[in-house]
Amino acid sequence: MAIAEQSDLFLRACRRQPVERTPVWFMRQAGRYLPEYRALRAQHSLLELCRTPELAAEITLFTVRKLEVDAAIIFADLLLPAQAMGMELDFVEGEGPVLSDPIRSAADLARLHLPADGELRCVSEAIRAVCKDLHGKLPVIGFSGAPFTLASYMIEGGASRDFLHTKRLMFHHPELWTDLVNQLVQVLSEFLRSQVEAGAAALQIFDSWVGALAPSDYQELVLPYSRRIFEAVRPTGVPTIHFGTSTAGLLGRMAQAGADVIAVDWRVSLDVAWSQIGYEHGIQGNLDPTLLLAPFERVATGASQILRAAAARPGHIFNLGHGVLADTPPETLANLVEFVHSETGSR
Amino acid sequence: MAIAEQSDLFLRACRRQPVERTPVWFMRQAGRYLPEYRALRAQHSLLELCRTPELAAEITLFTVRKLEVDAAIIFADLLLPAQAMGMELDFVEGEGPVLSDPIRSAADLARLHLPADGELRCVSEAIRAVCKDLHGKLPVIGFSGAPFTLASYMIEGGASRDFLHTKRLMFHHPELWTDLVNQLVQVLSEFLRSQVEAGAAALQIFDSWVGALAPSDYQELVLPYSRRIFEAVRPTGVPTIHFGTSTAGLLGRMAQAGADVIAVDWRVSLDVAWSQIGYEHGIQGNLDPTLLLAPFERVATGASQILRAAAARPGHIFNLGHGVLADTPPETLANLVEFVHSETGSR
Repeated sequence: MAIAEQSDLFLRACRRQPVERTPVWFMRQAGRYLPEYRALRAQHSLLELCRTPELAAEITLFTVRKLEVDAAIIFADLLLPAQAMGMELDFVEGEGPVLSDPIRSAADLARLHLPADGELRCVSEAIRAVCKDLHGKLPVIGFSGAPFTLASYMIEGGASRDFLHTKRLMFHHPELWTDLVNQLVQVLSEFLRSQVEAGAAALQIFDSWVGALAPSDYQELVLPYSRRIFEAVRPTGVPTIHFGTSTAGLLGRMAQAGADVIAVDWRVSLDVAWSQIGYEHGIQGNLDPTLLLAPFERVATGASQILRAAAARPGHIFNLGHGVLADTPPETLANLVEFVHSETGSR
Repeated sequence: MAIAEQSDLFLRACRRQPVERTPVWFMRQAGRYLPEYRALRAQHSLLELCRTPELAAEITLFTVRKLEVDAAIIFADLLLPAQAMGMELDFVEGEGPVLSDPIRSAADLARLHLPADGELRCVSEAIRAVCKDLHGKLPVIGFSGAPFTLASYMIEGGASRDFLHTKRLMFHHPELWTDLVNQLVQVLSEFLRSQVEAGAAALQIFDSWVGALAPSDYQELVLPYSRRIFEAVRPTGVPTIHFGTSTAGLLGRMAQAGADVIAVDWRVSLDVAWSQIGYEHGIQGNLDPTLLLAPFERVATGASQILRAAAARPGHIFNLGHGVLADTPPETLANLVEFVHSETGSR
């Protein structure tokens, strides 16, 4: 157990307040690269882990203890709300998530429903358990998918390369698209608020695949709905982070959705990204997760470049540009936390 | 047969000279979306089509006649040079290209060799046949992959999502990476020059997957080699186009490689991209190919936005942001050519 005494480093960085060192956490920091996680997965399906608050809390907690990161993100799956809205969710080895009977018509849409009472309670219960254990020593991040990314899974039925079905629906049937994302705004807003009520001290909204869109299509068909999510959670008072990949051409527009912090991937230099986002926002990122497969000397060089690009400006949260890969050596992640802390700790 | 009398519209745009209307062509304009192409594919494998100059020429020609585009791109496959260097190439239905025994060690590298004399001659012979038929009425574009993209196929053994093996080699074994891309620079430079000798009036270098890299890694491990390709073909005097996807964060660096025209995908607004590339370069792009599955009204709106962003500045070539998708209605492409021509023809 080696959780920092200082619990609000991450939250102060989210609010662009001065910090004594740059906070660090990692997307998918609780995942397959950890032997402890693989041992649990040998006994339980991914959905069992997500839907059993004690197990989700345990995974969340052993990860932050092992890595000494500055925030805990609740262990959960992005697609739980789709399941709660009536879709059948499964995880196929080597293929990732599969949602049966994807949404491609008005009839498909009619099958969706608001989550039954308590259907998503597993997540807030897990947050409660984590907060209780941490005694306020570390902030807990709640999260959900953004309307576009969640809708794309529901329309494609899983991961996608070209998002053909999603774009076809957006371009051919804008009224169905609007109906679907309106439903998602309602469900996700409620889901996120319930996570804050349970103790989440910050929220991250994952629009992981939004970089597939042209900026003008984003502006017209996605931004209004993402904005409503941030408006809905603003009264909770917790800081918000808005993440996407391949967004180098979208950053100015994403910033308009209203998050406090924009999370960027490695495909753009952090200084260039921040100037496009605007310094009234914080920035999170942005090491290439693949770099963690390199010798640590090269990892350190990459991390140093990012810290230099952040130029000690308040509001930088160190993270990867996407989730930790399964092949990552756990000691590399632990060393990286230590490296970022020691490099920035002299301020 | 409806090929424009004016044959040098495209070439003048490449050189940023004034044009009476914006030239148009499409990446993968000869492909599965065309019934004529599917009929040929029913009789021949993809590699047979590529390696039989008469067939490759026929495909190239019926496409430009059907679409009335302003340039013909020779029908060929990006991976022919990898095959010529000793790798076994196959196309697996639904999976795309497969290169057996991918290059991941010094021993793998030692298996590669310079192409035997005449091994890539099928491409220049096809170019000769097309040029002969066109009588100079339309320019023919020759092409190759860029060192990074071709190397990534050779290291991954096919398409990839995360480029794990490629980056592992780049980061862990920079000496093997250097050896591989040096070989590719030599092979591709020679291959491109042979295409110009055969009659190609312009060259496009496809670095399709380079957007997977962080800008600093691009600068160190890719840019020097791409630059050498452009230096090698400059004495031929033909204009060069440098294409990649997800490059919104890389454009300034890509422009330093030395192409006349930078081709961008739809993930960035054309005006923003051009300002980053610099107006001493032309720009090609950048409609989302998925938009061609939409009603034509929406296609036209998207095309108009791009033409407005180009602001009638000399040096814009209209194209998609990536290749034509198999589901595209051929009449939509033909209508789009007509639309761009008529919208810009009043200048």
